Amino acid sequence: MAGPKASGLDLGRIVSEVHDELATRIGEGTVADYIPELARVDPRQFGIALVTPEGEVAAAGDADRPFSIQSISKVFLLTLALGRVGESLWTRVGREPSGSPFNSIVQLEHEAGRPRNPFINAGAIVVTDVAMAGHSPREAIGEILRFMRYLADDDDIAIDRAVAASELDTGARNQALGWFMRSFGRLDHEVEKVLGVYFHHCAIAMSCRQMARAGLFLAASGRDPLRGHSVVRPARARRINALMLTCGLYDASGDFAYRVGLPAKSGVGGGILAVAPGQASICVWAPGLDAFGNSRLGGLTLEALARRTGWSVFG
Amino acid sequence: MAGPKASGLDLGRIVSEVHDELATRIGEGTVADYIPELARVDPRQFGIALVTPEGEVAAAGDADRPFSIQSISKVFLLTLALGRVGESLWTRVGREPSGSPFNSIVQLEHEAGRPRNPFINAGAIVVTDVAMAGHSPREAIGEILRFMRYLADDDDIAIDRAVAASELDTGARNQALGWFMRSFGRLDHEVEKVLGVYFHHCAIAMSCRQMARAGLFLAASGRDPLRGHSVVRPARARRINALMLTCGLYDASGDFAYRVGLPAKSGVGGGILAVAPGQASICVWAPGLDAFGNSRLGGLTLEALARRTGWSVFG
Amino acid sequence: MAGPKASGLDLGRIVSEVHDELATRIGEGTVADYIPELARVDPRQFGIALVTPEGEVAAAGDADRPFSIQSISKVFLLTLALGRVGESLWTRVGREPSGSPFNSIVQLEHEAGRPRNPFINAGAIVVTDVAMAGHSPREAIGEILRFMRYLADDDDIAIDRAVAASELDTGARNQALGWFMRSFGRLDHEVEKVLGVYFHHCAIAMSCRQMARAGLFLAASGRDPLRGHSVVRPARARRINALMLTCGLYDASGDFAYRVGLPAKSGVGGGILAVAPGQASICVWAPGLDAFGNSRLGGLTLEALARRTGWSVFG
Amino acid sequence: MAGPKASGLDLGRIVSEVHDELATRIGEGTVADYIPELARVDPRQFGIALVTPEGEVAAAGDADRPFSIQSISKVFLLTLALGRVGESLWTRVGREPSGSPFNSIVQLEHEAGRPRNPFINAGAIVVTDVAMAGHSPREAIGEILRFMRYLADDDDIAIDRAVAASELDTGARNQALGWFMRSFGRLDHEVEKVLGVYFHHCAIAMSCRQMARAGLFLAASGRDPLRGHSVVRPARARRINALMLTCGLYDASGDFAYRVGLPAKSGVGGGILAVAPGQASICVWAPGLDAFGNSRLGGLTLEALARRTGWSVFG
Repeated sequence: MAGPKASGLDLGRIVSEVHDELATRIGEGTVADYIPELARVDPRQFGIALVTPEGEVAAAGDADRPFSIQSISKVFLLTLALGRVGESLWTRVGREPSGSPFNSIVQLEHEAGRPRNPFINAGAIVVTDVAMAGHSPREAIGEILRFMRYLADDDDIAIDRAVAASELDTGARNQALGWFMRSFGRLDHEVEKVLGVYFHHCAIAMSCRQMARAGLFLAASGRDPLRGHSVVRPARARRINALMLTCGLYDASGDFAYRVGLPAKSGVGGGILAVAPGQASICVWAPGLDAFGNSRLGGLTLEALARRTGWSVFG
Repeated sequence: MAGPKASGLDLGRIVSEVHDELATRIGEGTVADYIPELARVDPRQFGIALVTPEGEVAAAGDADRPFSIQSISKVFLLTLALGRVGESLWTRVGREPSGSPFNSIVQLEHEAGRPRNPFINAGAIVVTDVAMAGHSPREAIGEILRFMRYLADDDDIAIDRAVAASELDTGARNQALGWFMRSFGRLDHEVEKVLGVYFHHCAIAMSCRQMARAGLFLAASGRDPLRGHSVVRPARARRINALMLTCGLYDASGDFAYRVGLPAKSGVGGGILAVAPGQASICVWAPGLDAFGNSRLGGLTLEALARRTGWSVFG
Repeated sequence: MAGPKASGLDLGRIVSEVHDELATRIGEGTVADYIPELARVDPRQFGIALVTPEGEVAAAGDADRPFSIQSISKVFLLTLALGRVGESLWTRVGREPSGSPFNSIVQLEHEAGRPRNPFINAGAIVVTDVAMAGHSPREAIGEILRFMRYLADDDDIAIDRAVAASELDTGARNQALGWFMRSFGRLDHEVEKVLGVYFHHCAIAMSCRQMARAGLFLAASGRDPLRGHSVVRPARARRINALMLTCGLYDASGDFAYRVGLPAKSGVGGGILAVAPGQASICVWAPGLDAFGNSRLGGLTLEALARRTGWSVFG
Repeated sequence: MAGPKASGLDLGRIVSEVHDELATRIGEGTVADYIPELARVDPRQFGIALVTPEGEVAAAGDADRPFSIQSISKVFLLTLALGRVGESLWTRVGREPSGSPFNSIVQLEHEAGRPRNPFINAGAIVVTDVAMAGHSPREAIGEILRFMRYLADDDDIAIDRAVAASELDTGARNQALGWFMRSFGRLDHEVEKVLGVYFHHCAIAMSCRQMARAGLFLAASGRDPLRGHSVVRPARARRINALMLTCGLYDASGDFAYRVGLPAKSGVGGGILAVAPGQASICVWAPGLDAFGNSRLGGLTLEALARRTGWSVFG
């Protein structure tokens, strides 16, 4: 780990101090209980990792323990689908905050089965359908997994098969969303196949360190600055960040933007990926969720980190 | 007006070119027709003005013609109310995108009369109620007007009494919102008085140049950089920007964030105030509105400006 | 009054026994508290009266004490408005159960300000607007009062001015409904005037005996069988009964039809008027309301009466 | 067929005249197109049949041609389920008109997966789940079919396998409803199994004559008056009639009650079963539907029949 960078911030110390300060609140919130495998997770875990475009890494707590990334996968799935079909994706899904819980079906009925954005479950199911084009479910799952390994520069990343199976068994609400969109002709593939792929990419397990690394391109104008690859064009990276900021924390996105001021995407596994453009990619993880389905400790941690570093997209 | 600044951007030329490029589309959209006085506005007007923290000003078109600021006033009203009651304001209004049109009443019923954010009409009515505390309607209107004059550094700014009267006559929907919130005990003052103040601050008339100047503190960490005054703390400026980004263009806020990437607030008079933190405060005006109630040409202009300057909060 | 009629039912005894049986539950439910004058009513009152087309009257308990008829007035207002404009009334209000509480505004937004039926508040406000045509508010109120006195054959019926004033002071929700419909162009008269008339006819005070007598024409094919007058055509009486059955008890109308099987209309004053076509007009009154705004004891009483008499429109 | 009965009505002549009068409008409305097999039905068919408790039968037009009974089956399924679990059924489904289309999912979300009544699709799926208790899908389907044959006194009634298969293939909306209720724990059996049974009972094919005969017990206080059997207690027959009246024609139930005044249940196959308590059980069939999913010609026919006979439950 490097020392203080030119910005004058000692990120290692800040991360460590923020971790220790918030560690007193470990266990707050409620572990997601609707997926049995996730309900078994020990709530008293808490990790932070950040990576800067210069390659500096700061980490604390359970930063190397894999967790179920769940909806954070939607960011990467969106990236893949945009790569495949470009801006035409938006004929099939909107870009507006939903004003409703992550798994609501009401909005779908009012808007004829077109999901409001790619980060609510219905939207991610449509994006999955798009990303599958021309692929078998097995191939589609393989492609997503390879993309995550590539971005994180780590071939050890894997899907937690027990979680995927558990979601398939218990995902009645997602089945309903899938069938509902199918009834409006919004899915090209069979509901079972789309959900199979969907549940598998949600079940990818990664550590905070791996996730922060994987999200680095969003903090670096679409490039992987450590290997010098272009992942997406700068404009697309900005746009994905915009979607994360307006829609990334479900019906608490506005509140998060107000308190933290950084684009982010949460998952019910308790992870949150946040992006400080030009500064760092950050991942925090603590399994206890708040009423909106976002990691309670994770949100507080990012708020403290943003305050300590002064990072905000808003000035 | 200064020449090119250190950033290397010739803002005068960019503004001029963007104006000329978009001027070919003057007249697109529909002038708001539910307020008779606004319906009389000539749709073929189009102005742009921007001000940088260094005091550089670039303007084009009808940048000096006053227009009805309408909902853009909500940004300044919010600033006043936060100054008065601080973060306790959020017990009375939320911070989430609404997922519905600007004047919807449905959400209010589902959430017991608590508006989702201060930028939808219901929310701004509550913020008005807060800002009135201890004041007569006349005093409250005076205070808001003085605040706008101070921020714009221009004592010529005035309320268009004909517009205010027209809104009072025709504002049945806002009357309904007011009475509805009153029925939930959400307003401290009488509905008529709150709406009187509300309609008057919406009826303030300003030019693009005045508005861009008035919004400069949001691009400059809460300070008026030209006079060296602090208007709000830096954290508060960031937070107001966050609210503008997530909620400032009604149910098209997500799309605007995606396309433009800057905090902004629109009004049905056809104006949009946008903030590029650290770079500039921008105001565009063209009366024709899109289906969401935002200036159609204004949105396209800001998109072109953002592309040309590279300004975006998202990297 | 007469003994057992040809049907073999001793109605006097049945009413008396049902009263005594249910009197053990006097005080159940909650007195309406949103109108201060109504909140002052002693909850331990309970009256029953019924009148047959042959003129037999059976009564028990507080059958001669006046109570605030509130929404029961909507039946008579509807009768007046149909008399005035005929079936064209239905261009302005629907005939479907609302599926929502009596004062909901959500449905109005979804259906562009057209109320679902004349018995929810919004619908009754529109019907009031129709009934006012060509009249000053004072005249309109006078006409409704005269109609009630005529139907009940009793000139002592009066408006409780304290209740009307109390409603005007506290009727913010109805103000919201009125302004909301006005915003859709659904009201011909000024909101204040329509609500003035509305609150006054809701504030008419009548006893169970008077109300049962007033509703007799609905049980007698539209005729007042005791004076031999025709009030409305038989088809119209049937249709008003149909509306009472499907919409008369707000969002508990289906349940009431299932349990009791008679057309009825409730008011938040605790009264319910029920119609057994060909058999009797019945009014019960007990101020305690259930969660749907209907008299709790009143509903149980009508259920017991219907079981004892075998009266049901359903066979 | 008997001649005029004691009531003085020549039902044979009335049915014949009503048929001829309405036959001029054959073909109005739109044949249901979301089930391919139904979309193939010739829209120019029109049948009427009625049966009185005395055994008089009057029929006209295509009264002996089998049609897909679709949702009319929900009346008989409800009868079976009430026979199985009694009034405890209502812990699982409500008794209120829905205020929404027959296949809406919005209400389900607001009311935690509990359908509003047994005659909307979601409610009938729950009732199917209840009726299946202890049975395999095959057995459950067999039981329903036997019940229809018994009630119609005709063993030739059969399920149209092509329609059932067509519904299974295309019933995405019902799949969504099923999975949605499953997600709230509202179904005891697997979604596929419940829907298998549901689609099969909807696919029963019957003629107007058979259906009128099958519904006769509802017009005769729960008895089959021709064989002297008791099907259900009188109170239950009344209650099923009450549900038909308030909820039987989806979101046009209030209008139908107003215009026709008889309990009825429609199906998207174009059939309507109506009950005139004590007078007759009536079935009309014409495939063209109105915007609410009810047979357009069928509704007009029943309105004309009710006017001619004077039958109405409302006096």
